[in-house]
Amino acid sequence: MKKCMVVGLGVFGRELAEDLAHRGAEVIAIDDDMELVEAIQDKVDYAVRLDATDEHALSSLGLEDIDLAAVCIGEDFQSNLLAAVNLIQLGVKKVIARASNHTQRRILQAMKVDMIIEPEIEAAKRLAFKLVHKGLMDITFIGKDIATARLAVPKPFVGKSLQEIALRAKYGLNLIAIYSGNVEGDTAVNSNPSADTVLKEGDVLLVIGSEEDLKKISKLE
Amino acid sequence: MKKCMVVGLGVFGRELAEDLAHRGAEVIAIDDDMELVEAIQDKVDYAVRLDATDEHALSSLGLEDIDLAAVCIGEDFQSNLLAAVNLIQLGVKKVIARASNHTQRRILQAMKVDMIIEPEIEAAKRLAFKLVHKGLMDITFIGKDIATARLAVPKPFVGKSLQEIALRAKYGLNLIAIYSGNVEGDTAVNSNPSADTVLKEGDVLLVIGSEEDLKKISKLE
Repeated sequence: MKKCMVVGLGVFGRELAEDLAHRGAEVIAIDDDMELVEAIQDKVDYAVRLDATDEHALSSLGLEDIDLAAVCIGEDFQSNLLAAVNLIQLGVKKVIARASNHTQRRILQAMKVDMIIEPEIEAAKRLAFKLVHKGLMDITFIGKDIATARLAVPKPFVGKSLQEIALRAKYGLNLIAIYSGNVEGDTAVNSNPSADTVLKEGDVLLVIGSEEDLKKISKLE
Repeated sequence: MKKCMVVGLGVFGRELAEDLAHRGAEVIAIDDDMELVEAIQDKVDYAVRLDATDEHALSSLGLEDIDLAAVCIGEDFQSNLLAAVNLIQLGVKKVIARASNHTQRRILQAMKVDMIIEPEIEAAKRLAFKLVHKGLMDITFIGKDIATARLAVPKPFVGKSLQEIALRAKYGLNLIAIYSGNVEGDTAVNSNPSADTVLKEGDVLLVIGSEEDLKKISKLE
């Protein structure tokens, strides 16, 4: 079982700690605010009130068997940085730290933090794409220009088979799966559709292709 | 061209406004902090210093032709809420608002906001999954239990063809694409691999399957 430490229990850190525990990791959650520590104590293995900028306090926890520590102090970058420095110097195998802008990212990179996370920037990029490309949902870039996206079946495709539509030949897109029914609730996912599968109104397609090709198909409506 | 308004230019709002503009939307960016307005003015169409909790100030902008407004005030939920109420009452077609926890989500839902975004919670969930399931990158849930994920080629697969590995038959996973080269930099993406494609060390597979099946394959290393 993975042993994880989460430092800083704001919205992001708390969700991370709870989700890690929920997925089977052993989680130690730390904050210097007793209220935040109390709020999470039933959801993780250990919740400790402790100032992670204090190297001695941190070292008293015994960090030898921690697999990874995520520093999620959002508001005060100096504390965030100092907690990360402490964890690196105390020999934690993998230290993850949160950056809120490009300056912070550069500083953390120089410090050789193992992984830098930018939750707000990542989420903003995903939302911008989704808003601009109507009809496209859940865009995930998987290469410089290649993305997967969900797409409500465009009207001209309803009642036609995959062979007739020729997604790959005409639109440069590969089909990964078809959802039928309510996308938000219980949905049938067909991740192995055949050429004679006929698309229904309300179906949602999961496709992969270039941003350019995804843009084109999102305008088909 | 889509006409978007972004209210609140913290890390999330600023990135959203810049990304929307970059992707071709017409963007009006608003904050009551002049420094934040000045920092973004060259990147968007209009940057205005204005208090969005003031209905009269907002209405002076002429909101009739705005396609969507995103309220991204992170720190002060009351202001966030009031700005959203103002935009809804002034008749903006689509109002998106940011929630930082479940209480805020419930309040925004009751107000009939068109779309609620929770950047920190969303990012924390994705990170937790990634950390727990070693070898899996970029998990995106596309159904209740179905997800896409990138996966470094497990050692036992190196040098074998797709036919020999039999991902679908043996592991319940469908292969979407293969990346060769450096995943972070310029990478060749083969989104149409054939049965005799041979996997190399360092390749990364984009697969789709249930969380259970993804977990199993992530332990193959």
